[in-house]
Amino acid sequence: MIKTLNPDFKNTILEKLERQTFMNFIGFQVTNIAEGEIEGQLTLQEVHKQQKGFVHGGLTATLADIVAGFAAVSLVPKGHHVVTVELKVTYLNPGVGEILLAKGWVLKQGRKLNFCEAEIYCKSGTAAPVLIAKATTTMATLSPEDVQK
Amino acid sequence: MIKTLNPDFKNTILEKLERQTFMNFIGFQVTNIAEGEIEGQLTLQEVHKQQKGFVHGGLTATLADIVAGFAAVSLVPKGHHVVTVELKVTYLNPGVGEILLAKGWVLKQGRKLNFCEAEIYCKSGTAAPVLIAKATTTMATLSPEDVQK
Amino acid sequence: MIKTLNPDFKNTILEKLERQTFMNFIGFQVTNIAEGEIEGQLTLQEVHKQQKGFVHGGLTATLADIVAGFAAVSLVPKGHHVVTVELKVTYLNPGVGEILLAKGWVLKQGRKLNFCEAEIYCKSGTAAPVLIAKATTTMATLSPEDVQK
Amino acid sequence: MIKTLNPDFKNTILEKLERQTFMNFIGFQVTNIAEGEIEGQLTLQEVHKQQKGFVHGGLTATLADIVAGFAAVSLVPKGHHVVTVELKVTYLNPGVGEILLAKGWVLKQGRKLNFCEAEIYCKSGTAAPVLIAKATTTMATLSPEDVQK
Repeated sequence: MIKTLNPDFKNTILEKLERQTFMNFIGFQVTNIAEGEIEGQLTLQEVHKQQKGFVHGGLTATLADIVAGFAAVSLVPKGHHVVTVELKVTYLNPGVGEILLAKGWVLKQGRKLNFCEAEIYCKSGTAAPVLIAKATTTMATLSPEDVQK
Repeated sequence: MIKTLNPDFKNTILEKLERQTFMNFIGFQVTNIAEGEIEGQLTLQEVHKQQKGFVHGGLTATLADIVAGFAAVSLVPKGHHVVTVELKVTYLNPGVGEILLAKGWVLKQGRKLNFCEAEIYCKSGTAAPVLIAKATTTMATLSPEDVQK
Repeated sequence: MIKTLNPDFKNTILEKLERQTFMNFIGFQVTNIAEGEIEGQLTLQEVHKQQKGFVHGGLTATLADIVAGFAAVSLVPKGHHVVTVELKVTYLNPGVGEILLAKGWVLKQGRKLNFCEAEIYCKSGTAAPVLIAKATTTMATLSPEDVQK
Repeated sequence: MIKTLNPDFKNTILEKLERQTFMNFIGFQVTNIAEGEIEGQLTLQEVHKQQKGFVHGGLTATLADIVAGFAAVSLVPKGHHVVTVELKVTYLNPGVGEILLAKGWVLKQGRKLNFCEAEIYCKSGTAAPVLIAKATTTMATLSPEDVQK
């Protein structure tokens, strides 16, 4: 039931990613772009942590926002925009490891609203990734006319 | 009804803030520490934005997590820790301006769980700050024994 | 900044309330209708409880949905509809008492989306009401054309 | 990784269900009790609706709270209790049909907190059920000592 309205969505996303300055600033990279589904990763460094040495909850929320948001972007018509209406992140396990993996997808595509989910995993060495957070979010689609209003 | 269990909470927080590497990395500074209430600000730069030039939703969520979390930290007994259980951020207005202001407070203090809220404002020049996001969050209190488990 | 687009909003709401069969079934009554703000109450009975004798969390969520939703209805143009996009309820205290009071208001009015909040209180005898839950919700405005799509 | 700490969880739940007066009042019945997973259903009647004739959002939230909550109950030690900390429901499709189906499960089992999810479906005749809502929730485990505090 998920179907893109932009056959050129991969290029559209690649172009937007270049201008995602906060994403680039924190060092997150998108590694896979599919119809309604985005994956990416980040190599954990000291700057990504909170005072106890765990992954900062704000960083986790940021990754969820990015992969869920671009999952929605992959579906909307060319020239349309996606903005986050609301984001809820549930923190399941403390974030420790070397790499953060993030995966976002569209659960329900709508004409004006897209409901997305995201999962964030921590990976250490050869161990299986551990799910550290899950997010649900509402992403609004803005047409070119909406943006001008 | 909000009452700190740590008379030395200001120093406890100041010490933790130094080790908040992600907070320091993004350039956020706490400007006021009160019982159950934290304020701070960040000077907006290019690195804080998404592809349309607005404040990144992940940055907004990060500020909410920080001020709500430290609002809870200000109340718990010395040696106890606070971790984010869940965070919901509602995005009310696009983030444009020069300075981000963040304010977090504890709505309900509990023995194990603290319910907090946060507001994020954008400020441009001499105009009144604009509320761009509001967050609600659950913060768990971990005793030293909890941390060892 | 909150301003109704329907000068006849009180009658519009009164008419819709009659057809709110679930609201009538549970025994909730709206007691005050203002611009962007709705209040109501319910006399607690055995049928409203969970297995420990406390107010059922689903009932609390229902009251939040009703007062927040009608707060949004009070603002939209005549003939437009309001539907709940998402609802988050935080349970702050166990619900015990004789009367449930609910209050909902619009935090940010938008052309397509309204961000609302609600508080639910329990009241026993002459004691001050106790806040048992707080909710945040996104309410979408549907125009007559939207409904036909 | 989900593992019950109460070998007699089915009887524990059956006993609690009898005292769930609000659940019985709305006509919801649990149809399947498994380790960390609960299913149930409700035959839709006029009393379950809002003013447009769709399933009331509060009813949907109630079903999510019940199945997610009892999914958590199925895992905790005998004599322990489960209370809802927070519940977020996302409304994906309008609720129309003859039967509401609800399914709840535990995503992450913790010593003090359980993170659960729930899905609510509408079923009409022989058509495939339609997902109308998805919920995420935090459920706290209370020991007998916690309850006395």
